[in-house]
Order: sequence, then structure tokens, then C-alpha cells
Amino acid sequence: MNKRDVKKIPESRYAYDGLDRVIHERARLSVLTSLVTHSRGLSFADLKQFCALTDGNLNRHLQVLEEARLVTISKGIEQNRPQTTCKITALGRKRYVDYLAVLEQVLTDAATAMSTDSVRKGTSGPAIA
Amino acid sequence: MNKRDVKKIPESRYAYDGLDRVIHERARLSVLTSLVTHSRGLSFADLKQFCALTDGNLNRHLQVLEEARLVTISKGIEQNRPQTTCKITALGRKRYVDYLAVLEQVLTDAATAMSTDSVRKGTSGPAIA
Repeated sequence: MNKRDVKKIPESRYAYDGLDRVIHERARLSVLTSLVTHSRGLSFADLKQFCALTDGNLNRHLQVLEEARLVTISKGIEQNRPQTTCKITALGRKRYVDYLAVLEQVLTDAATAMSTDSVRKGTSGPAIA
Repeated sequence: MNKRDVKKIPESRYAYDGLDRVIHERARLSVLTSLVTHSRGLSFADLKQFCALTDGNLNRHLQVLEEARLVTISKGIEQNRPQTTCKITALGRKRYVDYLAVLEQVLTDAATAMSTDSVRKGTSGPAIA
């Protein structure tokens, strides 16, 4: 087999290409899940709290998400104090849903393997292919 | 609120601390899922194929997993040719299962939000908290 063919073969069964790197990073997954569960948006302060991130980290990840057009960040005034509000965009929601479908596939693959494996435990037969 | 308290507050609802960085990285998640689904182990060549990784990338990630004692890598002879076999360890399986539980939590959080959200779509009511 030609080495250059590796990425094309259908047996790349567990490559999970759909695990979008922009979303998969833990802090950003945390931010997006917070925003998906709060469709009217969250203040910077609330988001920081939900995700247990520092100001610097949250800012950095929000910037990545904003550049990918997955979130919007708007500045306004709330009770006479400046407030930054973050919202997930329609594209962000779509990409997040696509990402979740791949996560589900990981869970399904693992669950299938584990249930099969526990049945076969102790035998010398092959694990599922 | 003291800034240093951010990480301690119970409202860090979506921080997903259990998304173990050693496992969460996409290529390593791919490697571990391949090995969980093949409990007798996989050859380096098969693993490369399943995960659509290059030799260099697979080597690098296997090293990280081996250092964390999540996989074992053994060299032997198969049909007169040297063969490297990779297996998930008991610790690897345990950590992978713990990781899956957090993934499930992400999916549950997202699914709950989305079903609530679709019901409320078009209303001015707050999203779920």
C-alpha cells in the first residue's frame, strides 16, 4: 500500500475527522455548551463562572470562536455598568450540532466495544473488528 | 467576588474538568477508541490505518499514551517480520471509561438545552439556566 493512500482508505474507521478542532478544545467546548444552554446569551462574568476560566483564557478562546463566526460578542450598558454579552450564532449552533453527532459516534463505538468485550472476556477469541 | 475564587464556585457547571487532556486530544481519542474496540491489541500498521495518522504522528501520540501508562507497546515477530503491537492497559480502559462519562454529560447538557430551546423558540422567555 502506498503511504500516501493512508488517508483515503475506508478503514479509517476511528479517525473522527468531524471532531472540529475549533470546538473540540476543552475550554471552547465548555464555552459553546454554556452558550447553547443559554440561547439569549451570557455575560462575560457568567460565562467565566460557568466555565471556570480566567479573564485571559476566556478572552483568548472567545476570540478564536468569534473569528470562526461561531459566537458574537457585544458590548452594552447594564445597570449603568458596561457589560459584554456573548451569544452563539446560527452557524455556531449548526457546527456544534455536527460536532455532537461525532461525539455520539465515539460513544456508540466505545459502548459497542465494551459490551461485546465484557461478553468475550476471558476467551481467546478476537475482539470485534 | 474574589477573582481567585472563580475555580471553586459550584456554578462552574460547564467546566468539564473530567475531559482529561491526555485522552481528549483528537488523535489520542482515536487511538484509544481503536484499542478499546480491539482488546487483543492492534499492530502499528492497523492502528495507523484506523486513525488515518502518519507514522510520525502515531508514534508521537503513542509515546504520550505510553508515558501516561494508558497503553503498552510491544515488539515481536509476526510471519518473520518485526511487528509492533499496541494494547490498552487496565488503567487506560478505566480512564477512558471515566472520560466517556464526561462526554455523555456534555451530550446530555446539550440535548436538554436544545430540546428546551426548540420548544421556546420565538418566545422572549429565558433559556434554561
